Amino acid sequence: MLEKIQKRLFGFIAIQFFCLVWTTSAFAQDPLPSWNEGQTKQQILDFVRNVTTASSSSFVPPEERIAVFDNDGTLWSEQPAYFQLLFAIDRIKELAPDHPEWKTRMPFKAVLENDMVALAASGEKGLIQLVMASHAGMTTAEFEKIVKDWIATSQHPRFKRPYTDLVYQPMLELLEFLRAKAFKTFIVSGGGIEFMRPWTERIYGIPPEQVMGSSIKVKFELRDGNPVLVRLPEIDFIDDKAGKPVGIHKFIGRRPIAAFGNSDGDLQMLQWTAGGEGARFMLLVHHTDAEREWAYDRKSKIGHLDKALDETRSHGWTVVDMKKDWKQVFSFETP
Amino acid sequence: MLEKIQKRLFGFIAIQFFCLVWTTSAFAQDPLPSWNEGQTKQQILDFVRNVTTASSSSFVPPEERIAVFDNDGTLWSEQPAYFQLLFAIDRIKELAPDHPEWKTRMPFKAVLENDMVALAASGEKGLIQLVMASHAGMTTAEFEKIVKDWIATSQHPRFKRPYTDLVYQPMLELLEFLRAKAFKTFIVSGGGIEFMRPWTERIYGIPPEQVMGSSIKVKFELRDGNPVLVRLPEIDFIDDKAGKPVGIHKFIGRRPIAAFGNSDGDLQMLQWTAGGEGARFMLLVHHTDAEREWAYDRKSKIGHLDKALDETRSHGWTVVDMKKDWKQVFSFETP
Repeated sequence: MLEKIQKRLFGFIAIQFFCLVWTTSAFAQDPLPSWNEGQTKQQILDFVRNVTTASSSSFVPPEERIAVFDNDGTLWSEQPAYFQLLFAIDRIKELAPDHPEWKTRMPFKAVLENDMVALAASGEKGLIQLVMASHAGMTTAEFEKIVKDWIATSQHPRFKRPYTDLVYQPMLELLEFLRAKAFKTFIVSGGGIEFMRPWTERIYGIPPEQVMGSSIKVKFELRDGNPVLVRLPEIDFIDDKAGKPVGIHKFIGRRPIAAFGNSDGDLQMLQWTAGGEGARFMLLVHHTDAEREWAYDRKSKIGHLDKALDETRSHGWTVVDMKKDWKQVFSFETP
Repeated sequence: MLEKIQKRLFGFIAIQFFCLVWTTSAFAQDPLPSWNEGQTKQQILDFVRNVTTASSSSFVPPEERIAVFDNDGTLWSEQPAYFQLLFAIDRIKELAPDHPEWKTRMPFKAVLENDMVALAASGEKGLIQLVMASHAGMTTAEFEKIVKDWIATSQHPRFKRPYTDLVYQPMLELLEFLRAKAFKTFIVSGGGIEFMRPWTERIYGIPPEQVMGSSIKVKFELRDGNPVLVRLPEIDFIDDKAGKPVGIHKFIGRRPIAAFGNSDGDLQMLQWTAGGEGARFMLLVHHTDAEREWAYDRKSKIGHLDKALDETRSHGWTVVDMKKDWKQVFSFETP
């Protein structure tokens, strides 16, 4: 009997010991292994510790731990062009046989002739025509399938890999780390909401209902008694620049305590986040690594970063120097 | 030594026993005590069991357990008028001293003279004027405070209690029950999004980011370097009728598997929910209890229920007969 009791007790103590070791090692583990040690990483860790430590004067209750992330250039690459534009170009080429008139009509002509200079010259108006022709006219279910197929089969021109391989490993770790600390992570992108939602849950762990972006209008219809939503060639909302705080307010209805961006399009989102009371965290990803990724800022059309960089520095917000701060950029890199 | 071991072991076993009893009793407890036994309650329980039982052919993974609820008439009362209209009327009266011109201008004149017949005659156009005058022109933070103050201090004309006391106890239990089964609960209301968000988390356990509704436009501004969002007297989105599936798609980006409404304004939301694949649950609250609440349907202007009731019955969706199905309507009732 005594032996039995001792055996059982030993098992019980062993389990407790195991739990203790496991817990300790989990806490000791670096939550951001792809970030080099230094000021940037330390600022992130300090902020998260401050707002999640119950005894801290900066403590923020879990339901208010809202973190917003730009997508293009912040969570994944945006060169040589926004991936959604490359998607639109592929779509136009695919649809071209049904549209013989495109051979002579700009901006379609430029796309079909791979003339990127002429395409750029068609300006915002040309871009909108391209988006409408490639993104509207089908049901939302049909469009979702088109995006899923493209994401599954297309390759990035430089890296010859699926576009979703071009997400930043350090940012994936950051998203994971914040969620482990009871943050709710949202995407607030100037890109199309329905271009992101089909894959953000799988790639970023961010469900569709936490993804906001620019959108075109949709219309409810019954087709033979079957309800569908049809995508209309009409802009609904542009979730960029001053539209970002508006989008955040519309979709989330509370002010984020942390915001992550990389361009002047994110400036107002950072300002809006910074303007709230209590501890705040604002971060800009500065693309400084021409070798592993790209280096661009003030002179770039895509991911134009100028005023936001100056303001971030003057306020003492956090700047990621990609080359210096990130040990690894993409998960596929071999060290 | 032996005594010590036995004592410890006894403590350990006692804890295990306690856990077992607690778990069993938690499972045995009725999750919907304010619902009378019968077909309606059984349909709810059956649906939830089907979609949450891993071995069931109707199993739905937690991330897809999206349930959408109309607010007015579904989660709280809407008589003698939508509470938001009563709020607008109170606001107009409060602002009247600064607007002497309102004394002679409709629909303001009708409000100030408590002439509900004349107010109704001013139609939708008059209503929109009222909403814009009472809901726009301030920052979002200012409006939030106005709503919070009104909700905290105003009383319902019939029940002489705060409006938030007029939420339905059976629906509170249903929200809680669904969330305990890993559903994500959303409000999809024709009412104003910013009229609900200040109190839905406290009252329904639904956070602002899971509340959608009709909205007016807002504009980002820096005032002396301080970022604000200003409410503009311009409609942004009407989240009613065919707008409900559009709003669901815009905000959530996936199709609900359960939808709860009470009027023709909810019909398209029910249709959109029903149109998806797999197990679905559509429910209408039918106001049949003139004594404890109100009885109205086909002839009512507020909460007009006609076509949606016919369609719900013909499809075999669920109808709550408030008088018959609800043991208790409000939490303040004494049985």
